Amino acid sequence: MSQPVLVLIDPVTAASSPPASTERLRVHPADQPAITVSDLGVTRGDGIFETIGAAHGKTQAAGPHLERLARSARMLDLPELDLAIIAEAVELAITEHEPVAHLLLKIVVTRGIEGSDHPTAWVYAFEGEDAADQQIGGIAVARLDRGYRSDVAETSPWLLAGAKTLSYAINKAAGREAARRGVEDVIFLSSDGFVLEGPTSTVIARFGTTLVTPPPEALGILPGTTQAALFEIAESMGMATEYRALTSSELESAEGVWLVSSGHQIRPVNTLDGIELPRDRELDTALLAALQGRAL
Amino acid sequence: MSQPVLVLIDPVTAASSPPASTERLRVHPADQPAITVSDLGVTRGDGIFETIGAAHGKTQAAGPHLERLARSARMLDLPELDLAIIAEAVELAITEHEPVAHLLLKIVVTRGIEGSDHPTAWVYAFEGEDAADQQIGGIAVARLDRGYRSDVAETSPWLLAGAKTLSYAINKAAGREAARRGVEDVIFLSSDGFVLEGPTSTVIARFGTTLVTPPPEALGILPGTTQAALFEIAESMGMATEYRALTSSELESAEGVWLVSSGHQIRPVNTLDGIELPRDRELDTALLAALQGRAL
Repeated sequence: MSQPVLVLIDPVTAASSPPASTERLRVHPADQPAITVSDLGVTRGDGIFETIGAAHGKTQAAGPHLERLARSARMLDLPELDLAIIAEAVELAITEHEPVAHLLLKIVVTRGIEGSDHPTAWVYAFEGEDAADQQIGGIAVARLDRGYRSDVAETSPWLLAGAKTLSYAINKAAGREAARRGVEDVIFLSSDGFVLEGPTSTVIARFGTTLVTPPPEALGILPGTTQAALFEIAESMGMATEYRALTSSELESAEGVWLVSSGHQIRPVNTLDGIELPRDRELDTALLAALQGRAL
Repeated sequence: MSQPVLVLIDPVTAASSPPASTERLRVHPADQPAITVSDLGVTRGDGIFETIGAAHGKTQAAGPHLERLARSARMLDLPELDLAIIAEAVELAITEHEPVAHLLLKIVVTRGIEGSDHPTAWVYAFEGEDAADQQIGGIAVARLDRGYRSDVAETSPWLLAGAKTLSYAINKAAGREAARRGVEDVIFLSSDGFVLEGPTSTVIARFGTTLVTPPPEALGILPGTTQAALFEIAESMGMATEYRALTSSELESAEGVWLVSSGHQIRPVNTLDGIELPRDRELDTALLAALQGRAL
């Protein structure tokens, strides 16, 4: 694997007359300590992130990722971010990293050192793993109860449902539960039986020539950047797309289910809790190629 | 305020023939970076913590805190921790810190750098804030839905309910919601209406001469170390103590409600969503003195 690259951003907040970007961006050895132990990102998982893919040095859906970062910042009452300097940091990280086919750019913004009111921010660039096995071979998936009703985003905004925060211990625990069940990934369900999302992916189901994904705002899940790109691709191929709530049992009768994300692009689901799902391999291949071909 | 002290622990895991503790503990400048950006504690809030109080240099309930840390480690499938070296690190941090009346020792263990399978661990010692205002004056509290049913610890262990993890963004968001509502703290309720805990405290209610707290294992909340100490104190004063589920409305009819924690020791609740609660100031004072007097 190639060497990761770290670009620190300071300050990352919007200001009327910010310092020059050369003063705000600093390349730091990625394997050397960069965070203090009193940073709220460490002590409380109190921060947000985004992971942008770059194919051969060109970012994919950078705009939607930055918008989603700003949305997460608002949900966590963080100061307003300067998205332009973050975009510059992303480009700098790409330049500093040796050229690779699939680079991932993780943007992190924490609330900063406790009491400072000064966010800590960085971009960490690292080579994406080859996901071809799962992209082509597909994956086995289990459904897990996420514990929340489908309406918590509306009733209980303090639960931060739909914000992409650093408090992802549950998502990691779900991954370990998947391993215990002998599957590669999970799909979270609301406590009242609706399909939510994967721990790090969006769920898309096909019914005939219509692709369906759960509505993010209503269900308190992340609006998927790769899902949005896939919907555009599908529409250009003559398919219909729809945002609507899906019950867990509806998923079993889909003519195809995929998990999509910046990291893995698209992975077809072979089995759902052991139930075999149909696959259209021609369509799978076409969608993967179209997603990988973005921004080339 | 005095200068915080940081002690890094490496390795923190149990081993048959560990290196000498002088090689495992290292004092590091607390305000200098100590964590790398690829540490899962930062990127995923994937780790655990405990905060132990020390009154005039003597730890309070260190044993129960370390046991609870080990319990959290098991819930997160972390490697087995060497509690003895952590206890040594706590004592070293106390020695290195200038003497203060109320010191807090935050122990953190993360899953470590992604892919390393080698936890990162430290003890951070800092002076506790003077909480006399709230300890004596009491606090206004709001109840917030935590979103989870009361049985999720049993049905959905991957939600890590009852583990003290670094993924505390929701607890911080609850604090901001409290501020918006003009109260000092919140009490979380399960989605089916049972009293859970505060974001960083345990709830105790008094009915006559009996102190009641919700049962932690059944409800997926933290077993309170300060609550356990308070129960011992209350029993020595001739009061009865009980672990049982409390409904939200039962709380309104209590003859006294307290939030207890290592950081604030004990804070009487004056109002619950604006409803005035009774207070026995003599008892409040006696309990505070007894908690503060521990280990002196």
